[in-house]
Amino acid sequence: MSTLKERQTLIGQMAQAMGKSIYNEVEPKLKEIAPRMELQRKSPKLVTLEEAIRRSGLRDGMTISFHHHFRGGDKVVNMVVDKLAAMGFKNLHLAASSLQDVHAPLIDHIKNGVITEISTSGLRGDLAREISHGLMEHPVVFRSHGGRGEAIASGELHIDVAFLGASSSDPLGNACGYSRSPNAKSICGSLGYALPDAHYADKVVILTDDLVAYPNTPNSISEHDVDFVVEVDSVGDSSKIASGAIRDTKNPRDILLAKQAAKVIVNSGYFKEGFSIQTGSGGASLAAVKYIRQSMIDQGIKASFALGGITAHMVKMHEEGLIERLIDVQSFDKVAAESLKNDPTHKEVASYEYASMHEEGSATHCLDIVILSALEVDVHFNVNVLVGSDGIIRGAVGGHPDTAEDSALSIIVCPMLRGRIPCIVDEVTTLITPGRTVDVVVTEYGIAVNPLRHDIAERMRQAGLPLVTLEELRDRALSIIGTPAPLPFGDKVVGVVLNRDGSVQDVIKNIEE
Amino acid sequence: MSTLKERQTLIGQMAQAMGKSIYNEVEPKLKEIAPRMELQRKSPKLVTLEEAIRRSGLRDGMTISFHHHFRGGDKVVNMVVDKLAAMGFKNLHLAASSLQDVHAPLIDHIKNGVITEISTSGLRGDLAREISHGLMEHPVVFRSHGGRGEAIASGELHIDVAFLGASSSDPLGNACGYSRSPNAKSICGSLGYALPDAHYADKVVILTDDLVAYPNTPNSISEHDVDFVVEVDSVGDSSKIASGAIRDTKNPRDILLAKQAAKVIVNSGYFKEGFSIQTGSGGASLAAVKYIRQSMIDQGIKASFALGGITAHMVKMHEEGLIERLIDVQSFDKVAAESLKNDPTHKEVASYEYASMHEEGSATHCLDIVILSALEVDVHFNVNVLVGSDGIIRGAVGGHPDTAEDSALSIIVCPMLRGRIPCIVDEVTTLITPGRTVDVVVTEYGIAVNPLRHDIAERMRQAGLPLVTLEELRDRALSIIGTPAPLPFGDKVVGVVLNRDGSVQDVIKNIEE
Repeated sequence: MSTLKERQTLIGQMAQAMGKSIYNEVEPKLKEIAPRMELQRKSPKLVTLEEAIRRSGLRDGMTISFHHHFRGGDKVVNMVVDKLAAMGFKNLHLAASSLQDVHAPLIDHIKNGVITEISTSGLRGDLAREISHGLMEHPVVFRSHGGRGEAIASGELHIDVAFLGASSSDPLGNACGYSRSPNAKSICGSLGYALPDAHYADKVVILTDDLVAYPNTPNSISEHDVDFVVEVDSVGDSSKIASGAIRDTKNPRDILLAKQAAKVIVNSGYFKEGFSIQTGSGGASLAAVKYIRQSMIDQGIKASFALGGITAHMVKMHEEGLIERLIDVQSFDKVAAESLKNDPTHKEVASYEYASMHEEGSATHCLDIVILSALEVDVHFNVNVLVGSDGIIRGAVGGHPDTAEDSALSIIVCPMLRGRIPCIVDEVTTLITPGRTVDVVVTEYGIAVNPLRHDIAERMRQAGLPLVTLEELRDRALSIIGTPAPLPFGDKVVGVVLNRDGSVQDVIKNIEE
Repeated sequence: MSTLKERQTLIGQMAQAMGKSIYNEVEPKLKEIAPRMELQRKSPKLVTLEEAIRRSGLRDGMTISFHHHFRGGDKVVNMVVDKLAAMGFKNLHLAASSLQDVHAPLIDHIKNGVITEISTSGLRGDLAREISHGLMEHPVVFRSHGGRGEAIASGELHIDVAFLGASSSDPLGNACGYSRSPNAKSICGSLGYALPDAHYADKVVILTDDLVAYPNTPNSISEHDVDFVVEVDSVGDSSKIASGAIRDTKNPRDILLAKQAAKVIVNSGYFKEGFSIQTGSGGASLAAVKYIRQSMIDQGIKASFALGGITAHMVKMHEEGLIERLIDVQSFDKVAAESLKNDPTHKEVASYEYASMHEEGSATHCLDIVILSALEVDVHFNVNVLVGSDGIIRGAVGGHPDTAEDSALSIIVCPMLRGRIPCIVDEVTTLITPGRTVDVVVTEYGIAVNPLRHDIAERMRQAGLPLVTLEELRDRALSIIGTPAPLPFGDKVVGVVLNRDGSVQDVIKNIEE
């Protein structure tokens, strides 16, 4: 016989041996018995933005983070930084996955000392201009998307508090970039750049403009990772997702470049059953996939997956059965975002699953073909996608160096000239993607193949495609517009570009007014 | 003007200031340019079981873990432990989410010193019998599913190497409990109990019987968490998922109990639009949901979600629109597993998202009603689901104490007698679920309501349901079968039951032969 009372001594001994306490049956009191609808609609995590900030433990000097899935329509960065300024915070490090034109109000918050450090993939607009002119004391640190994901996962980039906009969340923090409720106000699709922050930040605040009842499933961010949920009027203007660099192009030169890129792909030797493809931002690169469609049908070739940067073009081809799976770190338009919501074979991935350098399983390691844009390409095939030829920051590193390096075939689409600005140059203003990783440059005046890729050059020749050298294109550009005057750079470092491996690859100097 | 060469000094200065190295453009060498199909089908992670074990760094004395989603059909535990024994490992701690009859071969591995500690939710069959008779030097540590998830997430239960069976995986480690390929050999559905192990174990080995090409999306386990992938003949016999305690019942007494439980639910005050429900293992509890279906239709009531332990009954009601979402920590049959595969509103959750005590957002905190089984209930409403009335371990803690405590209404279905064994007793053989958390006990001789729940008792009375006290039932059982002889317990502690909060709640003593 053994009663619980008789076992108490043994229980005590076991607890001591295991370094544990003894379970004390509390005085029989009622457990919580209210219907759970209350918690499904209103949880202890549901607070105001100010409360969330206060309770997050944020202090001066800490690192806050944001995602850029709403691109030019983002409303979260400005809203949160305004609040932080009003609450008196100083010396914060703002670590965003990227920043856009819409974030010009940060200029004031830099001037007043609220934000003193920035890490990002890109900068545009007035904020970029001011920073290029020397606004900040500390240089902005630029990382690729894969580099950022890995830096967060490894702890190199430690985030104290992440502020993540979501198009729906329940009060417990199950959140997504879309909503299944009739009150949906916004949609951005994949939250791939926010997932590292959600997983690894010390505290995670979800801001949502559609607070739905638990359970908000399927969800991309789990309640497990979320500390606070804040209901706001708007997290972003979805009409601006497909804006700027990821707008569908109607530009005839872009269409020409896209068609030429498609020919390169079809004749590259990588256009085979089960190939995989990604198109980076920029009209010509995004459009290229449209122009391989017919060849896929004609030759009976299907892609195993499209990666990226998912677009309506890709969704269409996926639905037609031409692309088996979609792997989505960022939805480039609303069609893609809706597809992510509804199609289980359209998969959201975190940026470290997308393009982490040291992760064998990251998607870019399985990528055959990538088509990318450029601001400048130099005669060594080095690419600049960040700093304009006027020395002012106006772009983003993005997944450019990640995908160029990991893909079997990287194709850059780039006009020889943009207006009076030469794009094929002697040396890029800033080194973003090393030439070693760039295989083909498609211009309106011919196709340049990296001398390291004899195989590709030979296939292009066989296909009758017009080959040129970058030196020829550079000279041709110079012959048209003349040698540009040297840029008036100062001596202050306003930006540091990190390579995917974390090392310092280049610096950006301030430009004189 | 600013050339890269001119910037080298600044790059060096920045690198030094940031504690980083300088990016050195390597000698222009070809990047990897082979088509990526090779990596999609065969990755460096793809190794034999022996290699995976060797390269995992496993050493004597470490902790290995397993999931039990194949229940009685599991083939992974025996396969891996056989291999570990052959490789000469000793003193391992086996931390499984649960163990079944099929794991009887562990007896030899305990005798030969390969396994010297076990943590689990349950034990059955010969292994349980031998352990009850004192096979092991160290007592087995029993945790609830929520308790295990939380212990793993908090680091209290540290797993060195997790060996996780999956019905499909690509060579990079994207894995699920089902397969979309024509070569599928098995299906278990949710991998909810494996997800804490996948996230938190130092090394993760996926064993799969359907190795598919990358990308195996959608996936429950991400390549990000996986170190090795091992292809094996079989990870489990899916026909045995819905076996034992989760078989659909045809037993007339179980059906009677299920119907009575349904009446309790419908009249409980919690049967309202948007309610949530879970049914635990055991024929009567699983069947109860069938018998509330008509009342839901008649009264126009829909459930916001069903949790658990998802069954074919629940899937049917979900597809009929009676249950809005399914939250699945374990698929209790093949219909549920197929639904998880195909239906985006059927959501897989990790066990810490399911029932973690300290996690506000865990699903059990939003649970209105749970119906659970019992081996014994005592007059204080305490429940035992682990140790038989013969003193031999024959069950599992499961989610029993988690859901009983967190739900607004916990209903235990339990016959007064099983053959000549009384199930309503003076004191439970082992305390698993404290009586404070148990609201209603449904027997074939009437319904007992916890005296703490006047509200429920009153509603049962109004509904004309037959109320009894547990003392009456205990006395009635004793009057039929007489007072049982005391069990011949010895003085050795063979099991320790931890409460959800990690404290020692009870001990299990050895039973003499």
